[in-house]
Amino acid sequence: LSSKLPDVGTSIFSVMSALANEHGAINLSQGFPDFNCPDELMELVTKYMHEGFNQYAPMPGVQSLREKISIKTEKLYGYRPDPNTEITVTSGATEALFAAITAVVKPGDEVVVLEPCYDCYAPAIRLSGGIPVYVPLALPGFSVDWDLVKKRITSKTRLIIVNTPHNPTGAVMTKADMDELARIVDGNNIFVISDEVYEHMVFDDLKHHSALENPILRERSFVISSFGKTYHTTGWKIGYAVAPPALTAELRKMHQFITFCTVTPLQMAIADFMDNEAHYLNLPAFYQEKRDAFAEYLAPSRFEFLPSAGTYFQLLKYDAISKEHDQDFARRLVQEVGVAAVPVSAFYHDKTDHHYLRFCFAKSDETLCAAAEKLVKL
Amino acid sequence: LSSKLPDVGTSIFSVMSALANEHGAINLSQGFPDFNCPDELMELVTKYMHEGFNQYAPMPGVQSLREKISIKTEKLYGYRPDPNTEITVTSGATEALFAAITAVVKPGDEVVVLEPCYDCYAPAIRLSGGIPVYVPLALPGFSVDWDLVKKRITSKTRLIIVNTPHNPTGAVMTKADMDELARIVDGNNIFVISDEVYEHMVFDDLKHHSALENPILRERSFVISSFGKTYHTTGWKIGYAVAPPALTAELRKMHQFITFCTVTPLQMAIADFMDNEAHYLNLPAFYQEKRDAFAEYLAPSRFEFLPSAGTYFQLLKYDAISKEHDQDFARRLVQEVGVAAVPVSAFYHDKTDHHYLRFCFAKSDETLCAAAEKLVKL
Ligand SMILES: CSCCC(=O)C(=O)O
Ligand SMILES: CSCCC(=O)C(=O)O
Repeated sequence: LSSKLPDVGTSIFSVMSALANEHGAINLSQGFPDFNCPDELMELVTKYMHEGFNQYAPMPGVQSLREKISIKTEKLYGYRPDPNTEITVTSGATEALFAAITAVVKPGDEVVVLEPCYDCYAPAIRLSGGIPVYVPLALPGFSVDWDLVKKRITSKTRLIIVNTPHNPTGAVMTKADMDELARIVDGNNIFVISDEVYEHMVFDDLKHHSALENPILRERSFVISSFGKTYHTTGWKIGYAVAPPALTAELRKMHQFITFCTVTPLQMAIADFMDNEAHYLNLPAFYQEKRDAFAEYLAPSRFEFLPSAGTYFQLLKYDAISKEHDQDFARRLVQEVGVAAVPVSAFYHDKTDHHYLRFCFAKSDETLCAAAEKLVKL
Repeated sequence: LSSKLPDVGTSIFSVMSALANEHGAINLSQGFPDFNCPDELMELVTKYMHEGFNQYAPMPGVQSLREKISIKTEKLYGYRPDPNTEITVTSGATEALFAAITAVVKPGDEVVVLEPCYDCYAPAIRLSGGIPVYVPLALPGFSVDWDLVKKRITSKTRLIIVNTPHNPTGAVMTKADMDELARIVDGNNIFVISDEVYEHMVFDDLKHHSALENPILRERSFVISSFGKTYHTTGWKIGYAVAPPALTAELRKMHQFITFCTVTPLQMAIADFMDNEAHYLNLPAFYQEKRDAFAEYLAPSRFEFLPSAGTYFQLLKYDAISKEHDQDFARRLVQEVGVAAVPVSAFYHDKTDHHYLRFCFAKSDETLCAAAEKLVKL
């Protein structure tokens, strides 16, 4: 069998987590919390299982969950998507991204991908015969260089993928960014995927700007989010896509044949738990405290901090410690220091290296403290 | 957005289930049990959630689950797949099918699909640029006509998809069928997908013959199963694929970008529950009793029974009652009689109609009895 994705190896997240386990290192690589989700949420799952909600969910998602998503979206972004025609629940944001890309991209289509970026965009594009057109985010700060984006747009451009808050950099798009994106796609036959899975994790006085706030973008975007980040349940794999009816119809055709539907008792439980708005309203403070604690513990170190405006990731520059390629430095960090992080070059198609490592701070205070203790020695 | 699957409408399962709800009909259409899964299984899920197993599973699946699948496979089919290189846990059998098809099929490839069949094969083939080549199963009894299959094989044939026990017909492939399939693919560059999600539901003195029993097939097949049917948990969406290392490597590349991984506490719970072999060893008797009860209740009716050798489906011919197209008859059955079934024409790409409806008998005795009471009046 000749491979359709010949250059895809094991994902960096699996590689680093495996390496961390092998060396008994503290794992700040793959993005997941080392604390549990709220008790109430698990109790709801148990309740719904025992009530017999263990059979197929409706293909687009459990009705109550789609309604709660609709209400939350209006409250936060001033737009109320129709649960019946504009919201689809998927097996994690990963499936939503795959389905949206597969729905839109045809052979020969070009897709603008801002780098560094999460590693699932390009393979999905290529499996549909599309061509990823990579545009680097601008240093320092990894902001979008819209002039560069405009230069890379051609008559074949069919889709632009953005991600805010941004994995791996923690950068956050401004309202001006969204307006600029809207100007670029307006009147062109270009769709947008806005990956907003960290929507509830934005720090300081910043605010998350969803593509759904912008009337032009809202008409041509798949806005993708996930409950895994919000509820500390990355292993439950419940995500969703909000898109106008015509786009949702095509996305659902894909979803129907990719997984058909998503775990029923988890959807039911999350729908109920969404009434607890305090949970997500407190998330920025919750994670900002972790970000700041990690920074404080690391203050005596020789690492240089990039501002983390959102997500649960912190980029650290290690130039003062080593000039190695970030893949080598990351490997040595696990083996010799006992801390696992992700080399940011893994988020570039050509492994561009700026000497940054990504650390996940969705960890208990003890974990962050123990990791910092090791890192300050460098 | 112009559609990549222009002729795909809402799935027949969603349509019939919605119609059943609308008319308060007894729903024997979509295949799912109306009784709950074992208590112990739910208690295990609760236990693992509270122990904190709510974060990402390993991409190929939880290790203990892959090991249990391996052991069970050896016990039943005499072949022990390597959990590390030959077993992948997916978000339902649907994702396994989609991933396997996407891994193998390239633009222009032909894929032999035996009809009637489950509705997700062809769209997945087409999304990869492949061409479904439909071969009808032979009447009566819906057995495979291997001579016809051979006639449809060309130099472009890349894949043959078989399904046993067979949805929607309840037919079961024999050892001779598997041997014939092996002879056809041996020495050609043709792969096999064997959809065996009803593997534990075979009745009378029949036996399920897995492609894994055949050394030639085992070398070139994706054998796909699911826990939804076996454990009465169709809404948990945990399936898996067994395939040789080279095929598994390609399937995992797809899985990694389609959903990345599958719900952790459910995988952990199923792994433990698999020690309870009695559960699946008792399934044939459990479902055979339901099949026979349904037949007994319907004996006074004018429906004609096709033998149901496996699955939890029963085909009924309604020729003596009506000459309508099965889609019309199925619709009238919901509206006027109050019983929902699936028209078998929905499983043919060209809606071939043999005047059969498919009834799901994975229902409580009361449900089967109440449905039969209505049906005998026709
Ligand atoms: C699906 S594993 C990757 C988790 C994640 O989002 C990240 O670490 O970036
Ligand atoms: C995924 S809904 C269809 C369920 C099923 O397998 C069937 O009814 O055939």
